[in-house]
Amino acid sequence: MTTAYLDKHRERLDAAVAACASRSYYSAFDESPSPRVYGESAAAEGKAAFEAWLGQEFPLTTPGSDGTVATERSPYGFDLGVSYPRAHDVDALVAAALPGMRAWRDAGPEVRTGVCIEILDRLHARVFELANAVQHTSGQAFVMAFQAGGAHALDRALEAIAYAWVEMTRTPRTAMWEKPGKVPVKMEKTFTVVPRGVALVIGCNTFPTWNSWPGLFASLVTGNSVIVKPHPSAVLPLAITVQVCQEVLAEAGFDPGLVALAAENAADKLASSLALRPEVKLIDFTGGNAFGDWLEKNASQATVFTEKAGVNTVVLDSTSDFSAMCFNLAFSFALYTGQMCTAPQNVYLPAAGIETDQGTKTPADVAAGIGAAFDKLLGDDARAVELLGGVVNDGVLQRLDSARSQGEVYVASREVTHPAYPDATVRTPTVIGLTAADSDVYEAECFGPVAYLIATAGTDESIRLFGSTVVEHGAMTASVYSTSDEVVAEVRHAALDAGVALSENLLGPVFVNQSAAFSDFHGTGANPAANASYTDGAYVASRFRIVQSRRHVD
Amino acid sequence: MTTAYLDKHRERLDAAVAACASRSYYSAFDESPSPRVYGESAAAEGKAAFEAWLGQEFPLTTPGSDGTVATERSPYGFDLGVSYPRAHDVDALVAAALPGMRAWRDAGPEVRTGVCIEILDRLHARVFELANAVQHTSGQAFVMAFQAGGAHALDRALEAIAYAWVEMTRTPRTAMWEKPGKVPVKMEKTFTVVPRGVALVIGCNTFPTWNSWPGLFASLVTGNSVIVKPHPSAVLPLAITVQVCQEVLAEAGFDPGLVALAAENAADKLASSLALRPEVKLIDFTGGNAFGDWLEKNASQATVFTEKAGVNTVVLDSTSDFSAMCFNLAFSFALYTGQMCTAPQNVYLPAAGIETDQGTKTPADVAAGIGAAFDKLLGDDARAVELLGGVVNDGVLQRLDSARSQGEVYVASREVTHPAYPDATVRTPTVIGLTAADSDVYEAECFGPVAYLIATAGTDESIRLFGSTVVEHGAMTASVYSTSDEVVAEVRHAALDAGVALSENLLGPVFVNQSAAFSDFHGTGANPAANASYTDGAYVASRFRIVQSRRHVD
Repeated sequence: MTTAYLDKHRERLDAAVAACASRSYYSAFDESPSPRVYGESAAAEGKAAFEAWLGQEFPLTTPGSDGTVATERSPYGFDLGVSYPRAHDVDALVAAALPGMRAWRDAGPEVRTGVCIEILDRLHARVFELANAVQHTSGQAFVMAFQAGGAHALDRALEAIAYAWVEMTRTPRTAMWEKPGKVPVKMEKTFTVVPRGVALVIGCNTFPTWNSWPGLFASLVTGNSVIVKPHPSAVLPLAITVQVCQEVLAEAGFDPGLVALAAENAADKLASSLALRPEVKLIDFTGGNAFGDWLEKNASQATVFTEKAGVNTVVLDSTSDFSAMCFNLAFSFALYTGQMCTAPQNVYLPAAGIETDQGTKTPADVAAGIGAAFDKLLGDDARAVELLGGVVNDGVLQRLDSARSQGEVYVASREVTHPAYPDATVRTPTVIGLTAADSDVYEAECFGPVAYLIATAGTDESIRLFGSTVVEHGAMTASVYSTSDEVVAEVRHAALDAGVALSENLLGPVFVNQSAAFSDFHGTGANPAANASYTDGAYVASRFRIVQSRRHVD
Repeated sequence: MTTAYLDKHRERLDAAVAACASRSYYSAFDESPSPRVYGESAAAEGKAAFEAWLGQEFPLTTPGSDGTVATERSPYGFDLGVSYPRAHDVDALVAAALPGMRAWRDAGPEVRTGVCIEILDRLHARVFELANAVQHTSGQAFVMAFQAGGAHALDRALEAIAYAWVEMTRTPRTAMWEKPGKVPVKMEKTFTVVPRGVALVIGCNTFPTWNSWPGLFASLVTGNSVIVKPHPSAVLPLAITVQVCQEVLAEAGFDPGLVALAAENAADKLASSLALRPEVKLIDFTGGNAFGDWLEKNASQATVFTEKAGVNTVVLDSTSDFSAMCFNLAFSFALYTGQMCTAPQNVYLPAAGIETDQGTKTPADVAAGIGAAFDKLLGDDARAVELLGGVVNDGVLQRLDSARSQGEVYVASREVTHPAYPDATVRTPTVIGLTAADSDVYEAECFGPVAYLIATAGTDESIRLFGSTVVEHGAMTASVYSTSDEVVAEVRHAALDAGVALSENLLGPVFVNQSAAFSDFHGTGANPAANASYTDGAYVASRFRIVQSRRHVD
């Protein structure tokens, strides 16, 4: 086995490890799709590579498959028509995941880590193709697909590999143990990282790479084989991923069957069959609470990592810059049409209004401020689509429709016409006014471009509602706006109690729905929205075990 | 909050952390009960302190308790008569565990770690008292109770604290993040270790401290509150533990209710009620497979760490020192009457015999060699009891009785009379001859002093049976005797596949049932006998979460 790949990528690994420890800024993959960074032809070549897949059979084999499926339609209004082997015989699929694992285990952490970073490198070489694939499955606008679906996803994958590397190598491969005494006892000990078994990664529609890669690479690098079960509406980004994994594994002399794609029709319910298999010891899931909770409860033979949904909240108390606050909130609501597990939904603010640099602002004033920011951000259709992207599915549209009757429509949603894709469904967010009494509305996640301004008796009640909402319904993010150190400290404490990450007074170019790899933890695992975090020690430590042997030496 | 305790214990913590990383020899608590180490009066004072508890009410309060229970009888033949509050109202018990957690969390890792090591120090000051308490609940002989129940248990507790310390402090408390660009973006981030909630520790009869302390301290030091549910037959060692925890917590200004004792009558089934409480997020269990498996399957709201039971195996292929091998095996069978989850049970060897320095030895010859070693070790009653200890309960006696009819009785068990405790039940081990066909007998754990010599078609079959036994039924330990490097390598590979720790050719003063803190992992979590290991990263990493806050800075 060669450690050539690790040698090649060692600097990058070390930098990632250092960044995870310092939590300071680091990125290994440039987030700018500019030709100055990636070259003049990269964008066009990537687009062409994506388009070459359309209507084709994707060249992957899936053990035990039966025919093919072609399930993807771009939110921009066309069928992808890419067909994939339809996973069918779960016995055969799982059986094929086993034989490669021994050599992969015996290769050791150095070789596996090198191979996994090499896979990232090859994925990076196809980042424009991936960005197009993410755009036309998730509906993200291109630049976002390039960043969140490409560069940032690669960073998150590298982060998971870095954490796993530290975890695997904190125990030496061999150790000498000498117990002092009249006759000292000397033993040599060998410690081997062994995989848990087959890992199952269940992808989602909106972030097929960003949300799948951390678990995929955390499991693979620790020696497990991985079955990737993509969302039927977002297969291509993960098919490309599996293709690259298999290519590098084979080149490095390993069984490419260590990573397999399990595509299906939505009605096939493959995930639940796979999730209960005794060979499946690790499950990474991103998606709705119902299935996530089911996995946590029923897949007891496996360690289950879930990222589900919650109700992300904002506490508005006061601000030194009303316009910047409104702009920041508006951007967070609009980005990818609010179709992010991190997008804010519930904005708690006093019915009597908040103090700002522009005087007291009532909920209606705040809504108007956000509306004005929408006008700037989204007033022009051509610009709007680059922020909004497309509506990912009909469920989002239905929720947007019914939101109108839930409260006072402060800001109405608007249909946007995509200049390049006239069949795309594009909508701006709506802002709905509620009161603290409307808990039946605002205590459920309304995934999509719906924001609630919830009038409370005052900031004390806002903080109380923030806390109880998160404890009971979960949240991936929270934020607060206040010029009072006391209020910020109170909200910080409430966030600790509720177990949610807090952003304070975001008035600049950072948005609550964004988290930076190597520095921001995504999800906490401490509230019902997720039982895991990208990436902490707990995310990697139970993906392998250490098996030792020991013997006397003279 | 003071970090004075951490300052006091910093050197010890650093040494423990270093040992965990190097896996070289380290011990923080002297294992020798000699007066030269602990002083002339320590043993007598400890015994007196233990005896002073007999027949008394133990001075602890348990929230929601109803009356008292007195459930302990020494395997040496007398009732302890110590009464403890009987835990009753689970609502009240759990509710009382919550309020102290916020201040404990806010104190931070430094303060908590200092307090926890101070607790170990105070427990160490009572180590002779604890040793007597362990002896007269588990039945361990005194020196073993002092070591396994005292010094080594303290080392295992310190190891868990050291791992948790590393895990909690790998993320800085605060970090500056600066993203380069035309206008650099600068943020300050705060990272806080937050507890999971209430931790439940379910103790066992045979190792009330050694098996409970790692989980107890791993949960406590990471900010959780801990409810300790002792085995009804082994309460006193954990009552003393809770007393010391409460004493130090109170002195340090924390709610002593962070650690509570939940004693019960065996019929109360308190553990299952507590285990399903939504507030209970961590469970550490040592005991039988039935309840351990039930916990893993049903307590899905919690992260569950189990140490259950398995079938520990020995592969005999050949040896360079037949007498030493027989002596080592005999010692392992006899130590604490085989009442250890790590004691070997199944010895696979070729029916045709093994090659040794004394010629070919058939199974009958090996049994005779072990029998001769028993004669040396256990021939004298007064010496025998110091190795055997007492039979912990009637189940062990019943299994010993029925073993006679399971196969050929190569070595019969013998009743031993304890010179100091004539009412103690003391037995030497029996060695039973079986063949590979008797899988109905040898594939179940026969907890106690029963060893099976299983005649196979040859070492290949022995290794195959070793592997399948461990994969299907689990094992805490395995060992091999062979002069062939190829055979050892084969068994090593089989042990990796089966996920069990392997000891090779133990011919000296190290026994397969012993594992050394800071160097040997106890259990792997990779086979059905346990889903966790003392101590690896996975044992501590999910006992807390990290909650961050972030804000712009200039």
